[in-house]
Amino acid sequence: MLHTLLQRFLSSSVFVSSPTQISYFSSIRFDPDRFPMAANTISLSISSSSPKTLHSLQTPRGGLIPPPTSISFPKSLSLSSTAISRSRVRAGPSQLINEPANAMTSSPIPTIVEVDLGNRSYPIYIGAGLLDQSHLLQRHVHGKKVLVVTNERVAPLYLDKTVHALTFGNPNLTVESVILPDGEKYKDMDTLMKVFDKAIESRLDRRSTFVALGGGVIGDMCGYAAASYLRGVNFIQIPTTVMSQVDSSVGGKTGINHRLGKNLIGAFYQPQCVLVDTDTLNTLPDREMASGLAEVIKYGLIRDADFFEWQEQNIEALLARDPAALAYAIKRSCENKADVVSQDEKESGLRATLNLGHTFGHAIETGFGYGEWLHGEAVAAGTVMAVDMSYRLGWIDDSIVERVNNILKRAKLPTTPPESMTVSMFKSIMAVDKKVADGLLRLILLKGPLGNCVFTGDYDREALDATLRAFSKS
Amino acid sequence: MLHTLLQRFLSSSVFVSSPTQISYFSSIRFDPDRFPMAANTISLSISSSSPKTLHSLQTPRGGLIPPPTSISFPKSLSLSSTAISRSRVRAGPSQLINEPANAMTSSPIPTIVEVDLGNRSYPIYIGAGLLDQSHLLQRHVHGKKVLVVTNERVAPLYLDKTVHALTFGNPNLTVESVILPDGEKYKDMDTLMKVFDKAIESRLDRRSTFVALGGGVIGDMCGYAAASYLRGVNFIQIPTTVMSQVDSSVGGKTGINHRLGKNLIGAFYQPQCVLVDTDTLNTLPDREMASGLAEVIKYGLIRDADFFEWQEQNIEALLARDPAALAYAIKRSCENKADVVSQDEKESGLRATLNLGHTFGHAIETGFGYGEWLHGEAVAAGTVMAVDMSYRLGWIDDSIVERVNNILKRAKLPTTPPESMTVSMFKSIMAVDKKVADGLLRLILLKGPLGNCVFTGDYDREALDATLRAFSKS
Repeated sequence: MLHTLLQRFLSSSVFVSSPTQISYFSSIRFDPDRFPMAANTISLSISSSSPKTLHSLQTPRGGLIPPPTSISFPKSLSLSSTAISRSRVRAGPSQLINEPANAMTSSPIPTIVEVDLGNRSYPIYIGAGLLDQSHLLQRHVHGKKVLVVTNERVAPLYLDKTVHALTFGNPNLTVESVILPDGEKYKDMDTLMKVFDKAIESRLDRRSTFVALGGGVIGDMCGYAAASYLRGVNFIQIPTTVMSQVDSSVGGKTGINHRLGKNLIGAFYQPQCVLVDTDTLNTLPDREMASGLAEVIKYGLIRDADFFEWQEQNIEALLARDPAALAYAIKRSCENKADVVSQDEKESGLRATLNLGHTFGHAIETGFGYGEWLHGEAVAAGTVMAVDMSYRLGWIDDSIVERVNNILKRAKLPTTPPESMTVSMFKSIMAVDKKVADGLLRLILLKGPLGNCVFTGDYDREALDATLRAFSKS
Repeated sequence: MLHTLLQRFLSSSVFVSSPTQISYFSSIRFDPDRFPMAANTISLSISSSSPKTLHSLQTPRGGLIPPPTSISFPKSLSLSSTAISRSRVRAGPSQLINEPANAMTSSPIPTIVEVDLGNRSYPIYIGAGLLDQSHLLQRHVHGKKVLVVTNERVAPLYLDKTVHALTFGNPNLTVESVILPDGEKYKDMDTLMKVFDKAIESRLDRRSTFVALGGGVIGDMCGYAAASYLRGVNFIQIPTTVMSQVDSSVGGKTGINHRLGKNLIGAFYQPQCVLVDTDTLNTLPDREMASGLAEVIKYGLIRDADFFEWQEQNIEALLARDPAALAYAIKRSCENKADVVSQDEKESGLRATLNLGHTFGHAIETGFGYGEWLHGEAVAAGTVMAVDMSYRLGWIDDSIVERVNNILKRAKLPTTPPESMTVSMFKSIMAVDKKVADGLLRLILLKGPLGNCVFTGDYDREALDATLRAFSKS
């Protein structure tokens, strides 16, 4: 974590680090490009269990920072890594040795998955009871005011707990909240304006922090509001559904729907951190639980055959909310997502593969009416359609078709679109999909052995038509 | 220009260049981070007078670009610089030697001011008749569809000309347009939605280009729409007022107003180029002309005393629309703006100094009603208030106060706020200004000899109160 925290402020060239261990350093130069010059005081704190200020720097009057400055840290400082995650994703919590914990409760060390985006890198904390560890949130709060964006379903369950975590031992922080109506059909400009209204009325300035507390709709709207408010303020994601914990809260895609299509207005805007408290899943309805699993299954199909096979062994355990199974599925999903996003933040190519089943799925959501089906339900049916089309193209063998259908059915997810969807509805809605380029619709399709996919506009149009005809009336 | 065009696509480390001359290169490696991988074909063209395709690259199927690739250019290629601008801003048009011009008309070489922002650098073209030089616009258009965003006043004057410039010799390009009502009071979310509606109905995809044709309101709204549509598409600024040509079209600040404050919702989002055709000023109303000069005067006061002194000699020539005087004032203003933006794109400190007079001015615009006063008129009165406060603090001598009042009066600009503004109106509106940080209002004030300013929250509150009392009723 030290590596992560410092990286946001400092030139990466001046401190020695390995992915999971930082042993020692004596001086650091501030890189003006990465340094938040609007601040009047910068404090550097480290430790996962007890925040400790190592150094405060008073910025000069006027907010203008002079050319690179050096500060010194105690030479006796020693840090060690206490956990190592999968090797391909940079991760690992660090602790100050011999420091007593002073958080609200005993602090199990969370799993940390790092999203590696240079000076916009951030951690995903995953674990049970993380909302009880106030320091995890507080270390990522900028400024003296926070706006929590949540909805009518989540607020009674977790708003008080979140406010407590933000303000415990931190009495100078003011926390405002805005409670939006719940559901995909409210992911629109009118609802977004309520967030801006509240932020302005509460006089939140550029040094404020927005906190998204809820599922994917709340995360997308709060993130886009944070991207746009005063041309950009910091924000934190606290996802409370499987769908948002394994997918939508990670990677910086934010936005709202337009009546003609999903997520057509938005921004790429990364959070300061994502905090996944798996205890919040205890209150999740069964249908929402299943919906989230559609995205978990997606990761296996597009890039992680081992994970898919693990899911085939454990899908009932996931539905039964077995804590260990859920924690593993969330961690491995986040690792997959972080790996993809780190390589292709703005969706030039690779990142689009995360949209397996989504082009068909978005058409279902838009055509059938926002909120009638949950996002994951539409993605499940869309995935079956993408897999069907891949098979018609001769790109996969029939065993994959069968396995996909089986696991989705076991997950209690639909494998066909609603009966009211027609071929022409699919075609007209898919024509405004974000993956259209110069008039050509590109799709994510499976190709080759399990765990492989392509993102391509180079396919036989007849296969697409045949799939649409097979799954919807003309 | 070659340098600029290539820089957007290529790793900067692989071709040799000086600011105003590029002599030769034989091979180039594509940097995947900067390469627009969504494209199916990339053409590299150079020359300011005649677009010539040097090389086309077919991207692999699926839009996924393989690891860095090399292509070769003809070894005989020779380029030379024909103009050198002021040394502190990187600029200078280049031409292919011995190439006949083939634009729509004879092509006077535009002045080019470069906004240096790494791989988001872009040129500002300044000159008479530039809308007749189709290649200037066309080289910056991405994709096959363009949406021109303009208003009811500008459309009858310049929309046909702009469409012609975009499509001349380029029959595959489809140009749509959306014509918004004119005025600051329409710079709101409802009007912005008309842009999204048109873009979606026209099925513009991620490879489309938005073109802002109009003054500051159009540029701000079109830019924010481009930043948000499908999470970001390319856009071009064609400013048609002095205000937008010298200030708002340059530097990537985009956004809309909220009923409680100006520009509170928006994004930092840079255009592909800014095209300033000074002929468009021939149709500008006198009041708009004067409004723009408020920003020209600002540059002199905050950082360019020589320019201020030049303005004192030439203010009547500017009001009389002397072409040479206007061209010089626009160029020098853009150079000042480009220099500041290059150093501080996201307004961490230095860039805030461009807001001299704007905190008071925004309060006037918001309190008095959007559109009642033009932006520059409010800035002029606000500048007098900032200068008055600077004098009360003992930071400038009275000769500067007098010179500022004199030049603004000669420019036919107001030097006091509207009579209806009260001290409490100023205070409540200024409390939500974007320059407030942790509750502290920071202001741009003059300090020292002419041409020097500070951006600070460290001033005697009594001086602010005294200025507010002197300029508005309690």
